[in-house]
Amino acid sequence: MDEPVGIIMGSQSDWPTLREAADVLDQLGIPWHARIVSAHRTPDRLWDYGRSAVDRGLRVIIAGAGGAAHLPGMMASKTRIPVIGVPVQTKALSGVDSLYSIVQMPKGYPVATMAIGAAGAANAGLMAAAILALSDPSLAQRLDDWRAALTASIPEEPVDE
Amino acid sequence: MDEPVGIIMGSQSDWPTLREAADVLDQLGIPWHARIVSAHRTPDRLWDYGRSAVDRGLRVIIAGAGGAAHLPGMMASKTRIPVIGVPVQTKALSGVDSLYSIVQMPKGYPVATMAIGAAGAANAGLMAAAILALSDPSLAQRLDDWRAALTASIPEEPVDE
Amino acid sequence: MDEPVGIIMGSQSDWPTLREAADVLDQLGIPWHARIVSAHRTPDRLWDYGRSAVDRGLRVIIAGAGGAAHLPGMMASKTRIPVIGVPVQTKALSGVDSLYSIVQMPKGYPVATMAIGAAGAANAGLMAAAILALSDPSLAQRLDDWRAALTASIPEEPVDE
Amino acid sequence: MDEPVGIIMGSQSDWPTLREAADVLDQLGIPWHARIVSAHRTPDRLWDYGRSAVDRGLRVIIAGAGGAAHLPGMMASKTRIPVIGVPVQTKALSGVDSLYSIVQMPKGYPVATMAIGAAGAANAGLMAAAILALSDPSLAQRLDDWRAALTASIPEEPVDE
Amino acid sequence: MDEPVGIIMGSQSDWPTLREAADVLDQLGIPWHARIVSAHRTPDRLWDYGRSAVDRGLRVIIAGAGGAAHLPGMMASKTRIPVIGVPVQTKALSGVDSLYSIVQMPKGYPVATMAIGAAGAANAGLMAAAILALSDPSLAQRLDDWRAALTASIPEEPVDE
Amino acid sequence: MDEPVGIIMGSQSDWPTLREAADVLDQLGIPWHARIVSAHRTPDRLWDYGRSAVDRGLRVIIAGAGGAAHLPGMMASKTRIPVIGVPVQTKALSGVDSLYSIVQMPKGYPVATMAIGAAGAANAGLMAAAILALSDPSLAQRLDDWRAALTASIPEEPVDE
Amino acid sequence: MDEPVGIIMGSQSDWPTLREAADVLDQLGIPWHARIVSAHRTPDRLWDYGRSAVDRGLRVIIAGAGGAAHLPGMMASKTRIPVIGVPVQTKALSGVDSLYSIVQMPKGYPVATMAIGAAGAANAGLMAAAILALSDPSLAQRLDDWRAALTASIPEEPVDE
Amino acid sequence: MDEPVGIIMGSQSDWPTLREAADVLDQLGIPWHARIVSAHRTPDRLWDYGRSAVDRGLRVIIAGAGGAAHLPGMMASKTRIPVIGVPVQTKALSGVDSLYSIVQMPKGYPVATMAIGAAGAANAGLMAAAILALSDPSLAQRLDDWRAALTASIPEEPVDE
Repeated sequence: MDEPVGIIMGSQSDWPTLREAADVLDQLGIPWHARIVSAHRTPDRLWDYGRSAVDRGLRVIIAGAGGAAHLPGMMASKTRIPVIGVPVQTKALSGVDSLYSIVQMPKGYPVATMAIGAAGAANAGLMAAAILALSDPSLAQRLDDWRAALTASIPEEPVDE
Repeated sequence: MDEPVGIIMGSQSDWPTLREAADVLDQLGIPWHARIVSAHRTPDRLWDYGRSAVDRGLRVIIAGAGGAAHLPGMMASKTRIPVIGVPVQTKALSGVDSLYSIVQMPKGYPVATMAIGAAGAANAGLMAAAILALSDPSLAQRLDDWRAALTASIPEEPVDE
Repeated sequence: MDEPVGIIMGSQSDWPTLREAADVLDQLGIPWHARIVSAHRTPDRLWDYGRSAVDRGLRVIIAGAGGAAHLPGMMASKTRIPVIGVPVQTKALSGVDSLYSIVQMPKGYPVATMAIGAAGAANAGLMAAAILALSDPSLAQRLDDWRAALTASIPEEPVDE
Repeated sequence: MDEPVGIIMGSQSDWPTLREAADVLDQLGIPWHARIVSAHRTPDRLWDYGRSAVDRGLRVIIAGAGGAAHLPGMMASKTRIPVIGVPVQTKALSGVDSLYSIVQMPKGYPVATMAIGAAGAANAGLMAAAILALSDPSLAQRLDDWRAALTASIPEEPVDE
Repeated sequence: MDEPVGIIMGSQSDWPTLREAADVLDQLGIPWHARIVSAHRTPDRLWDYGRSAVDRGLRVIIAGAGGAAHLPGMMASKTRIPVIGVPVQTKALSGVDSLYSIVQMPKGYPVATMAIGAAGAANAGLMAAAILALSDPSLAQRLDDWRAALTASIPEEPVDE
Repeated sequence: MDEPVGIIMGSQSDWPTLREAADVLDQLGIPWHARIVSAHRTPDRLWDYGRSAVDRGLRVIIAGAGGAAHLPGMMASKTRIPVIGVPVQTKALSGVDSLYSIVQMPKGYPVATMAIGAAGAANAGLMAAAILALSDPSLAQRLDDWRAALTASIPEEPVDE
Repeated sequence: MDEPVGIIMGSQSDWPTLREAADVLDQLGIPWHARIVSAHRTPDRLWDYGRSAVDRGLRVIIAGAGGAAHLPGMMASKTRIPVIGVPVQTKALSGVDSLYSIVQMPKGYPVATMAIGAAGAANAGLMAAAILALSDPSLAQRLDDWRAALTASIPEEPVDE
Repeated sequence: MDEPVGIIMGSQSDWPTLREAADVLDQLGIPWHARIVSAHRTPDRLWDYGRSAVDRGLRVIIAGAGGAAHLPGMMASKTRIPVIGVPVQTKALSGVDSLYSIVQMPKGYPVATMAIGAAGAANAGLMAAAILALSDPSLAQRLDDWRAALTASIPEEPVDE
């Protein structure tokens, strides 16, 4: 496996959100794979994924989930590789349940939590890039360029629509 | 192992809360054991506990945790035995984080969630008793008596203190 | 009456949510009946239902309600049979009112609270099955199979839609 | 029974809060009685209290409770007499659970909900007085005087303490 | 003026909600009038309405408002007549802002707060009726009948739609 | 009256919070007066204060209140002078009730809302100064100096205590 | 630059909200300009805007932003000119995140926070007018007229639609 | 400067919380420095710190702040180096304001948000270690050992105290 970034999510329904992370990684030229790893429905898959992460050469894991979102925190328990958590928006509680379930981790097992929803997923891709750029000067340059382009894209004045 | 009820918790600091469940079980004559099983710090212990629960004769699991409280839900993922969840009160968010992390489980893996804190823990003991009483007429009688005694203990009028 | 599970709800408008519980029970081959029992509009019906529950052979009660959701807790007060509570999503407060009204029960009268909305209702059916399976090996096997099928249904990778 | 106002509460621990209502009633010369009527622990007492309220000459019921606070709403279901609800402050959720459980009543069964805690209890006494004053000119005058005295008690400027 | 109940609201946009109160009063044969009295836009109208309420024969005021909902509380400050508050649902905060602004009144000036939105408005009508029924046996009977009809309208079982 | 800033508050108990505003005004050499003006207990005082504000030469009003905090918004309704609102922290709801009651004003009557509690009160003094400085170059210089001194007071490194 | 009011916002998507402020300023005859100044995407633009604000003759800044809304507070850090903050409504958290990020400023750097969304933006325009009117009698008169017209526009009674 | 980790915070009062991050870094043998960098009081210091971070060899920034916590997000805007955010607990809102201000960042500028308070600060140290360990096998081993020691420290059973 040659992808340094693994994107995992609790179910297919999380993919429209997590897809934003993949898009950013594509823009920055960072290989990734995506897997459905449900903490509750496929706990053994979670175990195997976490246990073998270092050996497979994974360097960053992006984990998205909604509601009682246990996937990011459980993955952080199974591997020392940095885990970035994306709270998926939910129907009744708008993702506050996801956010609290991901961010309020006890001492020992940090999850780098992003904003609720699509912006958070895109930022998970950027955070993965920032981490990888620490030892990849070419990626650092591409990330700087990406950021400069974002800044340059902002017009001076708003326009009526 | 002869105890039908296992009380598990994320850390020693949860015991003052969960002890309330044990006290109720003692009052009703139901054997129990208590174990520290941290979802994040001892995930393999969680795995083993859940996988062997049926074979060891366990019938109800009471699981308490605080913050990003993943223990009850992960245990519910590992065994079909009913899991009763107790949200432990937390410092910053008063246990709302614990509550959301425990109760908002996805389809497939229910956790029978109780109130935040000590009253919830006591009720976890009573819920365990109510489940066991379905196939234990003597326990059903003791539970009826416990409830009747609670009702009888309520005075007619409040008193100034 | 031969159904071990009674599904009760505060009004007809709760049925689309509670129907999820019935569907799961159907899949597991567990007989059930459904009744409208409003804590406020038909309190005497609630009284009668609770008082006669044991004698009629009921073993688990699933109670769903929204807003100031008093049905599950009042039923827990009237019978020792396990009561599973389903908070129905509401218009203004999204079901947080329902959740707090159901889960925050005082010591003595537990309600096994599920997630807000349809997922919670489905899980109420599964929790009822888990309780009944304790004394019904055939149901235990069916529940294990149901869970295994859910696990097996999860694809490895997400697909773009 | 000659008291037009009944103060009921879920437990002895609610009395320090509800005592504020009684104090206001005393100041206004309105007879009252106080009873512990727990919705969950003494449901039959609740039933009897509600069913006989009209015949006993009760005119207003003040009901205080905390957590899953079902007492005010269930009493409103059992009698047409106006029920004033007082949400008692709670440990974990500060009384937001009490407030939602009392105020979010469905169509048909209003509870006149007051503020959380002691100020709400005092106001319950004043609301009872305002209702009774509609057919008691002498009480109306005493209530006007009470309000005028409150206004007169406000100094012009704050003082350092 | 012969209407015992005044329905006041902060703006025309509140009328679809408050109309529910008027409908219930119509069903019970209680005369009412409706006025737009904005606490902020027409404070002098609020003053005049409150100051003359007793003399005009008003017996109950139903006040609905949304957001920083000051109308019910300010009216309670200007008259001793019972004020029933209806929190109108809002766009950003769903009416939690309205609820807190209405219910959290300081000692001295109670507002009988109802549920957020249409159910709360209907219940405001019923609470007004319950208050008026204390001195109107014929209305008491009509209210009893209304409540009995509501109970009788509840079917035994839910139906699939 | 020569003070350009009036500090008003709902009760004596708000003074320890609002005193922070006065202290900042003192540091900046801005005269002020403080008055207790309760929206509910002394509504006529509020009326008079607001109606005469322009004529008395008032230029900014700082209004603090807690719970159903109607004072800032009602004052904004009675005068065009800028009103700065300070949400006072409350016992049950920590000042979220105060914040919502002050900030969620409808179109037409803005209240310049500050943070909950003492920091918000101090900032109310600074906001008053910033407004007055627009037409007072000497005050503008004093405010610049105050801000520069605050910046200069920040040490480079934290120290263990 | 001759406009006394600058309207700045984090992105083009905030303009439909902030446009409300501009409309009110137009109605009152107050010149303004609008700029996109993103705290995160164009921090140097923020710096320049703030540093030169006094010299360019700016007198009030209206700053709107959503989510982790840092623009108003950072602008308040860079200039002594009064900053009025408008929390823009957000998808997941409805603008509570925007509100907390704007209003909870530490001592030293006040932001005059308005209501969430369009009403808040309109009120930002009115607050700017109230500040400018302190030294512009003609504007003071126009503002008085605007307020009087708003009051006059309120009908006596609601109408069915 | 040889420290790969910079710990920055809004004020001296945040140090007791952030000190937890430093302690973890000490345990893992990772050099660090701590600086007070207030987004609002010392914005130019923030600018300089961020602009020169890459050149000074910084690899991870841990930023803690409370209330309208703008420091982590503004630092993320000024440098591509990974920023880990720690929401400091606050008096009125318990750190929910800090959390929302840090985690809800817009697309482009991620902040790796940790739990509120001391546990979050300790986890910030661990997340920094996990990032640095990606290119430091010796640190990876020390981190694995730290985690193993934490797991080994958990007793089997709780003890009464």
